[in-house]
Amino acid sequence: MHILIIGAAGMIGRKFTESLIKTPLEGTTPVTRLTLADVIAPTTPTGFSGEIRTATVDLTEPSAAERLLAERPDIIVHLAAIVSGEAEADFEKGYRVNFDGTRALFETIRHANQKEGWQPRVIYASSNAVFGGNFPEVIPDDYILTPQTSYGTQKAIGELLLADYSRRGFFNGIGLRFPTICVRPGKPNRAASGFFSGIIREPLVGLDAVLPVPDSTRHWMTSPRSAVQFIRHAATLDLAKLGDRPNLSMPALSVTVGEQIEALRNVAGDKAVAHIHREPDEAVARIVEGWARAFDPQRALALGFTTETKFEDIIRAHIEDELGGHIA
Amino acid sequence: MHILIIGAAGMIGRKFTESLIKTPLEGTTPVTRLTLADVIAPTTPTGFSGEIRTATVDLTEPSAAERLLAERPDIIVHLAAIVSGEAEADFEKGYRVNFDGTRALFETIRHANQKEGWQPRVIYASSNAVFGGNFPEVIPDDYILTPQTSYGTQKAIGELLLADYSRRGFFNGIGLRFPTICVRPGKPNRAASGFFSGIIREPLVGLDAVLPVPDSTRHWMTSPRSAVQFIRHAATLDLAKLGDRPNLSMPALSVTVGEQIEALRNVAGDKAVAHIHREPDEAVARIVEGWARAFDPQRALALGFTTETKFEDIIRAHIEDELGGHIA
Repeated sequence: MHILIIGAAGMIGRKFTESLIKTPLEGTTPVTRLTLADVIAPTTPTGFSGEIRTATVDLTEPSAAERLLAERPDIIVHLAAIVSGEAEADFEKGYRVNFDGTRALFETIRHANQKEGWQPRVIYASSNAVFGGNFPEVIPDDYILTPQTSYGTQKAIGELLLADYSRRGFFNGIGLRFPTICVRPGKPNRAASGFFSGIIREPLVGLDAVLPVPDSTRHWMTSPRSAVQFIRHAATLDLAKLGDRPNLSMPALSVTVGEQIEALRNVAGDKAVAHIHREPDEAVARIVEGWARAFDPQRALALGFTTETKFEDIIRAHIEDELGGHIA
Repeated sequence: MHILIIGAAGMIGRKFTESLIKTPLEGTTPVTRLTLADVIAPTTPTGFSGEIRTATVDLTEPSAAERLLAERPDIIVHLAAIVSGEAEADFEKGYRVNFDGTRALFETIRHANQKEGWQPRVIYASSNAVFGGNFPEVIPDDYILTPQTSYGTQKAIGELLLADYSRRGFFNGIGLRFPTICVRPGKPNRAASGFFSGIIREPLVGLDAVLPVPDSTRHWMTSPRSAVQFIRHAATLDLAKLGDRPNLSMPALSVTVGEQIEALRNVAGDKAVAHIHREPDEAVARIVEGWARAFDPQRALALGFTTETKFEDIIRAHIEDELGGHIA
């Protein structure tokens, strides 16, 4: 089987690739080819027994999708996107990449499907940002998508296209609404959501971290490990079970910042917690207030998608996967 | 004030135009200019005291939107669309007209807005077809849009774009999800929904009509008169009241075919009802089963949108507006 990962240089793309190399997918034919595509050259990982190729490609360029799909992969994992902040700051770039790029990909598959019957599986990364405005404390599976960002709008449009192209039989689509990923490895970044990871990641290596929101702030989070598991599950799931709604809110943990901090104390002690410095930032607090706090993802759970059951497990996964099991 | 109607040659476009000429909009500056645009040349109505122009234009042609908007109308009523059946039969044409055409219109407004601050009101005709699949008997305002047709998908995407462009301040948008219009004037057509009008319209002029579904079939209908009133209300409503959700399910009547027939009996007697012939058609029944049966349009009602309260009134409106008050 041939898997194409678009957006392979991103955090989830890299971790999904590593996971495929380390642990074969169950319940499907072996993965013998991997194509890793991104706008910046993805690094070629070692240890894969099959054929692995990288491609530097911008889906918004004419015929880029044709070239990328020329080998007719069996599964296409579409993770490529301009992130929320950039899509809000640059309206045209956000629509060009997140909207036209996705459409170009889908259209190219459609043309090949209509010509030769090729019908790949398409795994589309959507986001909880498709929800916005005055939503309930716990968002059910049948709640309306009224995004309050251009990024959320573009992701919601992608969901609608995915559903229509799948209904038409051009491909077999599944859309996964990713929760906020925590603990994100790497350096602190300027994303408004960065502190959710920062207050765990930095103290674990003996560094200070700033908390700009109240301890009562509640958010919907899952680990990179679970995010990878979502894609793995989507790669082998019987998609007929999706019925006429191929887009799903993924499970995650609804935790407050205070609960995150107590979990950190349980795992790494008071010394770690002492690295967290409360510096309230009204602007960040206002942005975060607009984000979903909890979901009731009954459909995804019934379809076998899983996540951690307590925040301590999310911290421990980070220590295992990123810190070689050691904390400062 | 200058109003541009795109899709002016259609039934609702013509009736809205006539209404503007006959009855001035209240609570706004007088309408002194009307531009009527459509892919087929709209007829120029008489009796308008201001300036009236017609334009034959296809929004999907390069720079068509630029030319159409060159006069910077104050209100743009966007009714132009490929209908449901055609959008399903011709995938590419449906997306080209309903999706790219709408986007071209919105993009042209955005460019002008960013250049010169022009910020028109945009009234967008959406449809109940944005709902589909396993929805509840009565659909609430916050129910998810999972269309099961390409037409419904295109309309739902238009809603998302309208919301994002409005949130950004490029224009002041309002989207109206039109119910099925009944009684549609004119000849019987091949639309699957045609019988809802046919079983009223034909008997009233002494002609036979075929009923392909059971009497228990429930549907959500309003009159052409109410549909025009929706647009009139949207043209003068304080759009700040929409908050962050500019798309609204319109009010209508939830009636069964049996109730339609009894209303016809009340208005026009047994003689009219005798013209209805039951010829069950499984294919039509299956299509109609997938359509919304009732809504709870609390937001639209709170904002002052109104509809008929009993089906007899819908029949009487047809007799007054289309038959000069006379029945066969």
